[in-house]
Amino acid sequence: MPRSEPSLAPVLALTADGMNCVNQIILDRMQSKIPLIPALAGHLIAGGGKRMRPMLTLASAALLEYEGNRHHKLAAAVEFIHTATLLHDDVVDGSDMRRGKQAANIIFGNPAAVLVGDFLFSRSFELMVEDGSLKVLKILSGASAIIAEGEVDQLTAQRRVETSEDQYLSIIGAKTAALFAAACRISAVVAERDPAIEQKLDDYGRNLGIAFQLVDDAIDYDSEVTESGKDKGDDFRDGKMTLPVILAYARGSAEERQFWQDAMQGRRTSDEDLAHATSLIAKHGTVADTRERAKHFANRAIDSISGFPANEARAAMIEAAQFAVSRRF
Amino acid sequence: MPRSEPSLAPVLALTADGMNCVNQIILDRMQSKIPLIPALAGHLIAGGGKRMRPMLTLASAALLEYEGNRHHKLAAAVEFIHTATLLHDDVVDGSDMRRGKQAANIIFGNPAAVLVGDFLFSRSFELMVEDGSLKVLKILSGASAIIAEGEVDQLTAQRRVETSEDQYLSIIGAKTAALFAAACRISAVVAERDPAIEQKLDDYGRNLGIAFQLVDDAIDYDSEVTESGKDKGDDFRDGKMTLPVILAYARGSAEERQFWQDAMQGRRTSDEDLAHATSLIAKHGTVADTRERAKHFANRAIDSISGFPANEARAAMIEAAQFAVSRRF
Repeated sequence: MPRSEPSLAPVLALTADGMNCVNQIILDRMQSKIPLIPALAGHLIAGGGKRMRPMLTLASAALLEYEGNRHHKLAAAVEFIHTATLLHDDVVDGSDMRRGKQAANIIFGNPAAVLVGDFLFSRSFELMVEDGSLKVLKILSGASAIIAEGEVDQLTAQRRVETSEDQYLSIIGAKTAALFAAACRISAVVAERDPAIEQKLDDYGRNLGIAFQLVDDAIDYDSEVTESGKDKGDDFRDGKMTLPVILAYARGSAEERQFWQDAMQGRRTSDEDLAHATSLIAKHGTVADTRERAKHFANRAIDSISGFPANEARAAMIEAAQFAVSRRF
Repeated sequence: MPRSEPSLAPVLALTADGMNCVNQIILDRMQSKIPLIPALAGHLIAGGGKRMRPMLTLASAALLEYEGNRHHKLAAAVEFIHTATLLHDDVVDGSDMRRGKQAANIIFGNPAAVLVGDFLFSRSFELMVEDGSLKVLKILSGASAIIAEGEVDQLTAQRRVETSEDQYLSIIGAKTAALFAAACRISAVVAERDPAIEQKLDDYGRNLGIAFQLVDDAIDYDSEVTESGKDKGDDFRDGKMTLPVILAYARGSAEERQFWQDAMQGRRTSDEDLAHATSLIAKHGTVADTRERAKHFANRAIDSISGFPANEARAAMIEAAQFAVSRRF
């Protein structure tokens, strides 16, 4: 019997009870006497998403067999940071779609999206302060600054066809992987484990985050994936230099390079141009190669937790890393 | 000999040495390996502004005869929160001018202004975490959430001519006065004073903040003020229901009310319309009355610190409150 595809099912099962608590905290803490705040935040938060980051906090706590409940509030804080980032990202990118629905900035306007993002960000710090661990506050305020730096770095790289794979890895390491790493690391802090354990969980989260983002960026050009939360071709039209494009550009003929140059600078944004881009990416196999790169990081994530006791949580976290590579949504 | 106009000179002299330390921390901590961050932050920060909030932290520390230097880093954190708010405000309002210069979002674009604001906000929490007081973190994360709520509330009230004076006071209490209050209160925390002292400084800052914002809003319609950091008439064109307009609307004829209705909803935005608005405000004396309201809050600020020893700092803080009412810039 063939082994079934890796999935998130084990980590979802492992964290189901805890995520109910986290979701309740999220709902409670996005409230405000200003009705627009829960309306807008609720649109995005109720819109689903995988809630990968708080789930990782909970899975990491389970890996360490932590028995308390401090991690619930902190997982909600992590999700608020992420939600604030998404709201601001959609304003920055002028996105129309998020998680398969109209983006909040389209429905509520950019001003509201910016300000509600700020509110959620502040609220996340309030949650951390209530928990009272300066160590956790240091980890998450540091991650937040790194995320913002990564976003600015990405803005600077946008439309610059010469962006290197190293620069790209540095950007996704900051804008995505830093929060994955922090989400895992804080569980070692609440479980009062030593710095070596903290570091291993940080490594797991960081490598998983890179794998996740690589596959996100691959999916935007993957002709085998038809459904995606965001608009297919958004990265292309925004001139984002993601790895499938970086590799296709590096391997392309002079003529192809000229096409990428024009496309990334916004001079070729039609459906035909997108189809041509997708065909070039298929020709050079760079979606598959991006997934291969993701596999490397997923394997590193798995190795980071290989020294932990072989409990249910470890198995679920290993499968989550395998899923990160193979996922099609 | 007539008494000279109240000025900020005493509080500037009182805090000059400390503000050098604060300014150095601000410059150090706005650095990043991503060059766009210090470029954009530097544009706004070097652009001046009164640095009222960190100055109040320093003045409050002097009032309490605090001898340490923890308040320097925290004053920088307060200014970073304020700077982040200004960057996001300018995006929200689509402002062209800030502190007499082109607004950062005009030069660097809205995306960069949003993201650098996020960076400065995160950096401010990093500074607080380095200081290590959970109490200060609680005060400033709470103030940040209230500011964001106030900004959203203001957005909701925008173009709604029926906004009441109470609603307006609630908005400026949140968007402006909360950070003034926190800036003063944290000095009592670092000086390890009891909650009653904390509360008095909070009251001083809150009332001063309201007075400051009232006068800011009066200046936008004050025919005697010709120079202002922002574009004259911005509030009018943005349909912001500030007190000079709320009072003129309340006191206006049916015809005048119709004019305000049209104007606030963006149907009358020409220079002639602004001139007409200014003439209606002059007719009903609502700039003067807004300053009178400001005087009430300034007096309350002064009374909040009347029980402190009569040192140089107290005299400077009293005069700062008087200046808040009479200032023309």
